[in-house]
Amino acid sequence: MTREQLFAHIQARQSYLCVGLDTDPGRIPQHLQREPDPVFAFNQQIIDATHDLCVAYKPNLAFYEAQGAKGWESLQKTLDYIPDTHFTIADAKRGDIGNTSRLYARAFFSEMGFDSVTVAPYMGVDSVQPFLEFEGKWVILLALTSNKGSHDFQFTPQEDGQPLFEKVMRTAQTWGNAGQLMYVVGATHPEKFREIRAIAPDHFLLVPGVGAQGGDLRALTLHGANRQCGLLVNSSRGILYAGGGVDFAKAARTAARKLQEEMAQLLSELELL
Amino acid sequence: MTREQLFAHIQARQSYLCVGLDTDPGRIPQHLQREPDPVFAFNQQIIDATHDLCVAYKPNLAFYEAQGAKGWESLQKTLDYIPDTHFTIADAKRGDIGNTSRLYARAFFSEMGFDSVTVAPYMGVDSVQPFLEFEGKWVILLALTSNKGSHDFQFTPQEDGQPLFEKVMRTAQTWGNAGQLMYVVGATHPEKFREIRAIAPDHFLLVPGVGAQGGDLRALTLHGANRQCGLLVNSSRGILYAGGGVDFAKAARTAARKLQEEMAQLLSELELL
Repeated sequence: MTREQLFAHIQARQSYLCVGLDTDPGRIPQHLQREPDPVFAFNQQIIDATHDLCVAYKPNLAFYEAQGAKGWESLQKTLDYIPDTHFTIADAKRGDIGNTSRLYARAFFSEMGFDSVTVAPYMGVDSVQPFLEFEGKWVILLALTSNKGSHDFQFTPQEDGQPLFEKVMRTAQTWGNAGQLMYVVGATHPEKFREIRAIAPDHFLLVPGVGAQGGDLRALTLHGANRQCGLLVNSSRGILYAGGGVDFAKAARTAARKLQEEMAQLLSELELL
Repeated sequence: MTREQLFAHIQARQSYLCVGLDTDPGRIPQHLQREPDPVFAFNQQIIDATHDLCVAYKPNLAFYEAQGAKGWESLQKTLDYIPDTHFTIADAKRGDIGNTSRLYARAFFSEMGFDSVTVAPYMGVDSVQPFLEFEGKWVILLALTSNKGSHDFQFTPQEDGQPLFEKVMRTAQTWGNAGQLMYVVGATHPEKFREIRAIAPDHFLLVPGVGAQGGDLRALTLHGANRQCGLLVNSSRGILYAGGGVDFAKAARTAARKLQEEMAQLLSELELL
């Protein structure tokens, strides 16, 4: 999916919501536990209930890997079920030496069919480059994450004064362009979005941390949007587990709808519709 | 496995060799391709041919993930086949927000039964901590990697002058001790081992990059060993693909034997036997 197509979907659905499919088998409602593949059955209903309200789906791979081979099958079925009109993100946070990153890239892009993968920057250029070699696919590089530990290294000033996350963002722009590279920027740092837009005016940002982690949608949107919106804001637990009974999908839809309505309002204020 | 047990195995086998089970289905000899699980059949013969010459096995998970659900089964069978006398490393380079890292930790430690996991430091304390909560299990944190991209961020001086990899090493020592934390330090930086020993005198180092990547075993051992050896030196391609025919396991044994003999000589020079 190109950047222009993604923006067209955002305008059509008046939404830049990404639904995080972090499906925890222990939190799937009772009545689905008897299904042959409860994780897939759950995801299917979540997708049915939210697809007109969001533009992207992001399974975090840990939730599937924790189930071994079975989890891998649930993931593939889920991915195949997501409509082509939605951007798909393998939230994998991978990154290894060149020949190994190449294998991960092939697995996520060619074999499974994801549009994008989240990649960790620590190992540098040859750990990221293999993911950038796939036409029409995207790298979403960790820049400023939403968690407490983001303060350990990401904010540390380098000798030239810029914090590590800024160095990561600037360096990565020499590896790929805004049509193939996005950044992860946590919603828990809303005050940073203006700075980040100065460094990367055209790039899309994947923004986790709204909802359970406490980020502020309005603040980050007003500081972080660009003229193609440039934001994919993720919510996982706040949507998936909005309800816990037989009507979980309805509750998920209500939670997603609430975010989408806020987003529509913000897009309209920013004159992006 | 404790640090003392690991050192006892090193002394008994006169070896600190780790065999990297980076099994590429495309490079498995022809005669094994008809097996129901060629990857497992290959690994089984490699383990049979090398277990008395090494102390650890390290499958890189990319090679298994690239095969989807089937690969996950080959990995579990391989892990179950490795003798209890060997230290096992899930080379996964994971790291995510706390609740997600917890899932990865549970998958690799409790469900699969690995002794250790490689973890990326970029996301900081709460991405690493969940792996340190498992009694008797190990985190192997990326510090200075063996690849070209290690020069992009790991060597960059922070405002206090120390390079990022040193900051990572020092910070991580406030999270865990030398009985549960190792570091990855690439063999391609032999000149750095003396400095690294000053920062972490007691920690084991996992050292990739000997063989295909060109690292120097003698130099890194003389600069990097401590009084419990403190090194696990990995070779993957140099052993697995030493031969390509029906006698691949014999060729693998010869390659592993060569490294083990050099290691025995170095351990003896260092009076560690």
